[in-house]
Amino acid sequence: MNSFGHNFRISLFGESHGAAVGVVIDGVPAGIALTEADFAEDLARRKGGTLGTTSRTEPDEPELLSGIFNGHTTGAPVAILFRNRHQQSEDYAPLAHTPRPGHADWVAAKKFGGWNDPRGGGHFSGRLTVALVAAGVVAKKIMGAKITARVCEIGGESNPAKWQEMLTQAASDGDSLGGIVECRAEGVGVGLGEPFFDSLESTISHLLFSIPGIRGVEFGDGFEAARKRGSEHNDPIISPDGTTATNGAGGINGGISNGNPIVVRVAVKPTSSIRREQHTLNTLSGSVEPLSIGGRHDLCIALRAAVVVEAAVAIALADASANLKLKIEN
Amino acid sequence: MNSFGHNFRISLFGESHGAAVGVVIDGVPAGIALTEADFAEDLARRKGGTLGTTSRTEPDEPELLSGIFNGHTTGAPVAILFRNRHQQSEDYAPLAHTPRPGHADWVAAKKFGGWNDPRGGGHFSGRLTVALVAAGVVAKKIMGAKITARVCEIGGESNPAKWQEMLTQAASDGDSLGGIVECRAEGVGVGLGEPFFDSLESTISHLLFSIPGIRGVEFGDGFEAARKRGSEHNDPIISPDGTTATNGAGGINGGISNGNPIVVRVAVKPTSSIRREQHTLNTLSGSVEPLSIGGRHDLCIALRAAVVVEAAVAIALADASANLKLKIEN
Amino acid sequence: MNSFGHNFRISLFGESHGAAVGVVIDGVPAGIALTEADFAEDLARRKGGTLGTTSRTEPDEPELLSGIFNGHTTGAPVAILFRNRHQQSEDYAPLAHTPRPGHADWVAAKKFGGWNDPRGGGHFSGRLTVALVAAGVVAKKIMGAKITARVCEIGGESNPAKWQEMLTQAASDGDSLGGIVECRAEGVGVGLGEPFFDSLESTISHLLFSIPGIRGVEFGDGFEAARKRGSEHNDPIISPDGTTATNGAGGINGGISNGNPIVVRVAVKPTSSIRREQHTLNTLSGSVEPLSIGGRHDLCIALRAAVVVEAAVAIALADASANLKLKIEN
Amino acid sequence: MNSFGHNFRISLFGESHGAAVGVVIDGVPAGIALTEADFAEDLARRKGGTLGTTSRTEPDEPELLSGIFNGHTTGAPVAILFRNRHQQSEDYAPLAHTPRPGHADWVAAKKFGGWNDPRGGGHFSGRLTVALVAAGVVAKKIMGAKITARVCEIGGESNPAKWQEMLTQAASDGDSLGGIVECRAEGVGVGLGEPFFDSLESTISHLLFSIPGIRGVEFGDGFEAARKRGSEHNDPIISPDGTTATNGAGGINGGISNGNPIVVRVAVKPTSSIRREQHTLNTLSGSVEPLSIGGRHDLCIALRAAVVVEAAVAIALADASANLKLKIEN
Repeated sequence: MNSFGHNFRISLFGESHGAAVGVVIDGVPAGIALTEADFAEDLARRKGGTLGTTSRTEPDEPELLSGIFNGHTTGAPVAILFRNRHQQSEDYAPLAHTPRPGHADWVAAKKFGGWNDPRGGGHFSGRLTVALVAAGVVAKKIMGAKITARVCEIGGESNPAKWQEMLTQAASDGDSLGGIVECRAEGVGVGLGEPFFDSLESTISHLLFSIPGIRGVEFGDGFEAARKRGSEHNDPIISPDGTTATNGAGGINGGISNGNPIVVRVAVKPTSSIRREQHTLNTLSGSVEPLSIGGRHDLCIALRAAVVVEAAVAIALADASANLKLKIEN
Repeated sequence: MNSFGHNFRISLFGESHGAAVGVVIDGVPAGIALTEADFAEDLARRKGGTLGTTSRTEPDEPELLSGIFNGHTTGAPVAILFRNRHQQSEDYAPLAHTPRPGHADWVAAKKFGGWNDPRGGGHFSGRLTVALVAAGVVAKKIMGAKITARVCEIGGESNPAKWQEMLTQAASDGDSLGGIVECRAEGVGVGLGEPFFDSLESTISHLLFSIPGIRGVEFGDGFEAARKRGSEHNDPIISPDGTTATNGAGGINGGISNGNPIVVRVAVKPTSSIRREQHTLNTLSGSVEPLSIGGRHDLCIALRAAVVVEAAVAIALADASANLKLKIEN
Repeated sequence: MNSFGHNFRISLFGESHGAAVGVVIDGVPAGIALTEADFAEDLARRKGGTLGTTSRTEPDEPELLSGIFNGHTTGAPVAILFRNRHQQSEDYAPLAHTPRPGHADWVAAKKFGGWNDPRGGGHFSGRLTVALVAAGVVAKKIMGAKITARVCEIGGESNPAKWQEMLTQAASDGDSLGGIVECRAEGVGVGLGEPFFDSLESTISHLLFSIPGIRGVEFGDGFEAARKRGSEHNDPIISPDGTTATNGAGGINGGISNGNPIVVRVAVKPTSSIRREQHTLNTLSGSVEPLSIGGRHDLCIALRAAVVVEAAVAIALADASANLKLKIEN
Repeated sequence: MNSFGHNFRISLFGESHGAAVGVVIDGVPAGIALTEADFAEDLARRKGGTLGTTSRTEPDEPELLSGIFNGHTTGAPVAILFRNRHQQSEDYAPLAHTPRPGHADWVAAKKFGGWNDPRGGGHFSGRLTVALVAAGVVAKKIMGAKITARVCEIGGESNPAKWQEMLTQAASDGDSLGGIVECRAEGVGVGLGEPFFDSLESTISHLLFSIPGIRGVEFGDGFEAARKRGSEHNDPIISPDGTTATNGAGGINGGISNGNPIVVRVAVKPTSSIRREQHTLNTLSGSVEPLSIGGRHDLCIALRAAVVVEAAVAIALADASANLKLKIEN
């Protein structure tokens, strides 16, 4: 459902065009300094710049509703609220009976008997990732590790110098681009992750695949490992502190962190909403019709996804860390 | 930890060289015909043939300890036990202080303060997948869908005619090979999966990454989606029953099954245990030493992983299905 | 932690003197009519009348932040917020180092290393029950059963005609009174509750004991059953619809609802905050000192607890019902 | 369902007349000495003596299937199995269509569509408490606290000298007796229990009410608290170590342990199976018929319940303790 985590647990709520989106974070240790200002940088990163990102600009001001006293966490749940301000729900009226290809419109209507909020994808919108980013800020504070994600490929191109031109071309074509995001977590220590089902890969991928638009997740050598021999992929320990030779395992053995950097890559699909004409079913008439999607959309959601991926990894690690040792000042 | 699932919930236990491995399955609907014979085919598939698989041959006879009466499930937990018979624990004595590259030996000792059972990887062994396969048999019975996994690539080669030669060569080199397994689930219906965190990709990948040796998971177009434009990857609905044009989304939109086949691919690393000389840390001396691993091992665990992948997908779908509608004869 | 339930799941947050208290409710079926007005009656019952209740009067206006569209639930989480308005935190300043007897002051400071919000009990305050009552309103809508709780004893007296006088006397003594609340749920059907650990008594008592100030919970004949013989306590089925002769089992056998009214009684302690002089530890000086608690408090929290008990029972039943059959309009 | 606990988690399985009952315990810290002999004393206590207990005598020999190596726990799940040996299933044949008053026969058949194992109550049998007792042994080892339960009342009589005569009389009447068990846990420390829903009373009562035949649970002053004034029930702290004056709160404030002994009392119903004639529905004919239950039954299950109550309390405390601080030897 809409919550994740055993001992560091988040519960998400909200809709793209409803009153608000938000998150309740349970299991936050007491005594962590936390104010609205701590969220500014990551929220700004998620908004993206002008290049290839939507023109919908929400202020994204977090309201800290609970769990904080005198500027520090209290150990009680931290609830964070983001009011929606700049909805343009009228953009979605023409789409009532033509489910957008690649979106959850059709399945959502089926699953919830037509009662779902369809405006801007409702609860299925990428808008909810603002709450995930906020939870990630808290998780990163807890972890104290260096967790950083960056776009490493757009439209199959790994040279950033060419991205501007590719985005401009896609925009002029009314089309969109996919991309790949890589996240590294350094300094997380040895022993995070639980056998059997809460392997670190399991919990990290669980969270990553909850982000709208993710098509693949790989660790270390990833899919390349499948093309290697054991003698090439094996990653011998070469130091008493656990340092390995190649980190082809992405910092994880047997589902448990081995002290080397955790490395995970995520395939982000191209934005589904495009101006260029597609076809889709008209659920009233039963016929397939052409469709051109207006409104405000990203050209390449990978550009804004990096900080969301970072948040997801941080949340999974914070939960694994809490599972490992719940500290308390007795 | 060692359990997975909300309403169809499995709990795994056991070690490679302990008395037994097993699984307790909770949430099995009452009234399903189930006997030992139902497990034979999948357990045989997991054993593999002679090609590229270990010479350790366990009988793998399931004992159904509970939850069954008159040949049908009762609604109470189904406990299934597999006694270990053919352990050769002496193979592992030389490895006590030289953690095998690619294995959990080193992290397990760190995490559990040296108390872990190291024989054959203990609780981290691929031996535990026999219990996963057993749970998959029950899950497939519940689902009634067609869920099939097959090896589609070994060592980077997708032509099965060349695999025999590659395996022979790897064996003679004392080395091992990775591979890719694809699983398709047809007939699972519309609406499985829950927003936000229990997206179908999240729960399926969670289970898949718990299988030892998995390095990547992708759905539909997978990592290729990241190299496509929206107009190429989008997957328009072309029929009132929800059929889409390309199934590039792998049967899932917004985390919810859309009625098309669910398609997932899994990267399996090459077997870590190889005869060919590697190096590793000697934890007693602190120096790095050469290591050649004897004993009985697979050349290519991907060959035996297909039925395990199938089981993992079936279990995730059975849980999603139970989450969707818990049926009961009132 | 601060969430409860498997398939109907609530997450609570907030503090007595913080910005707000609230609840996120996950697993609410789509299509239920729900507006702010639906909460008015139960919220008013929780406020209590003038007799024996605190003079702190919060408006208790619920903000429905998510999960509702066109006046109906959408299937997405319903978040409900109550802003705090009338805090008088200065009442608590004198208590900083004298933990109030019967309150969580001392354990909260120990557990959270002094970081807890101490104002009005912070997260441990009875103020949070406003969110529980709100969740109960939604649960009762889902259940459609008749769930009613009432005070049946105050200060050991079961004749309501005498309560006014007892309360007046306690008030003049600067003291407080305990009481007993009984809740009945009729029409919940057969089959709610799960073996072994999610017996209906288990989940109902779990929620009831989370309400501040509860000291005991009993079902049907309750503690009297321990004084009876089997021939007296046994409760034979006397009709094909499952109606029993005495309902001494309180509508539950083997943890499963048997179709008869569910009957549960709850012991509510006397309000801990009293004007009458008590003693407590001064945590600065280490000595025991006299203490008289001013501020605004209830004389008898049992009077306001009935609707909270009702909510707790309704929430447990709604979860059990969701566990039994998750309905969906496909 | 059939599992309980967050970080110390138990999963139960088995039936009274099936092959076995057992438990899988996850979250057991590594390095605890544990052998079959550790279980002998508590298992013997559960069997009861000759007085008032069933003549069915199972050997109750625990098989430790996993999670133990060299006589110590490994950190992996501990699976414990008890084979059933002395079933007399033929005793139950006459009861196929006459659900026994006070038992789960009728609701189980309804809930599971007639597929449930009816022999001896199947999965609803008190036989499963042998697995609970085994888990309690492990929990007590973890806690290191002094957790002791004893019968303090039988048939309303608190003087043990009179119990023998009462039991003899009940036996000669073909009837049964209820009783009250009190459990005290000393030395558990300060800070166990979590706000809001995982209050210590919540989790302890959750487990206690899962034991077959429990009708009521109360802490400290319990139901008597409802008859007291605040000045009588309040329990002032009188020492810097948290010692209170009366322990009327039963060692718990705000759901959190306060360092004083935890005191909980449990009402156990009289055994439902009695030789004395009762009436019940014949589900075939639809008429109400006389019923006399033969077979082997306890006169007073409270006599054997003490060690089960002790186990339940220990398990809840071990989970709360694990939630508080997961220790690991890094």
